Amino acid sequence: MELDFTKTEGLIPAIAQDYETGDVLMLAYMSRDSWDETLRSGMATYFSRSRQKLWKKGETSGNLQKVKEIRVDCDDDTVLLKVEQIGGASCHLGYKSCFFRTIDQNKKTTIVEEKQFDPKEVYK
Amino acid sequence: MELDFTKTEGLIPAIAQDYETGDVLMLAYMSRDSWDETLRSGMATYFSRSRQKLWKKGETSGNLQKVKEIRVDCDDDTVLLKVEQIGGASCHLGYKSCFFRTIDQNKKTTIVEEKQFDPKEVYK
Repeated sequence: MELDFTKTEGLIPAIAQDYETGDVLMLAYMSRDSWDETLRSGMATYFSRSRQKLWKKGETSGNLQKVKEIRVDCDDDTVLLKVEQIGGASCHLGYKSCFFRTIDQNKKTTIVEEKQFDPKEVYK
Repeated sequence: MELDFTKTEGLIPAIAQDYETGDVLMLAYMSRDSWDETLRSGMATYFSRSRQKLWKKGETSGNLQKVKEIRVDCDDDTVLLKVEQIGGASCHLGYKSCFFRTIDQNKKTTIVEEKQFDPKEVYK
């Protein structure tokens, strides 16, 4: 089967989920090339919209994502990667998950996770 | 805090996750109006890109999503809804999750969930 890359400016959203705990780690986008590279290498490879290039997750921080299983959704336009998060943190701010804040009905946010690393030490 | 609706044609991706099991159920999009309506009502309300209108999840099938917790990501442009999935199925094809298929390195898919309802009976 082939994914549908015709929506969202030629990209598909990819959700990364911790394959053991079920925690949702992050959402990023994939181009056709990054999708093929993810399948080929077994390491999560996205397309950076800000840098407009292929982005092997963890190439700078060392926090790679080893793909354990991939699911596709009913519309063939979204993928779910069940991954082993190397280094225990996926977020560039140092948290395990990019979803480290809750938000309430009044749009007030609260940090509910502990930092796993100091971004200043990792991204120099 | 305010979400960043400037990317992805004015919409933000919203991931729905079963608040008890951690299963990722679906990904849909939210406009600013659907985000406000979700906060106000406590029921997941998306924006249908195909119908170009607000879409209260489950309005036809009865399979509503009661929001238990909302997380926002580090870029303020994606939300994660932890929901109670009424009726036990979120997918319009009758499965619990829209991600009911695995895909392997050769792009072969395999259905790995059981159908919870018959779509022909629900959508008439």
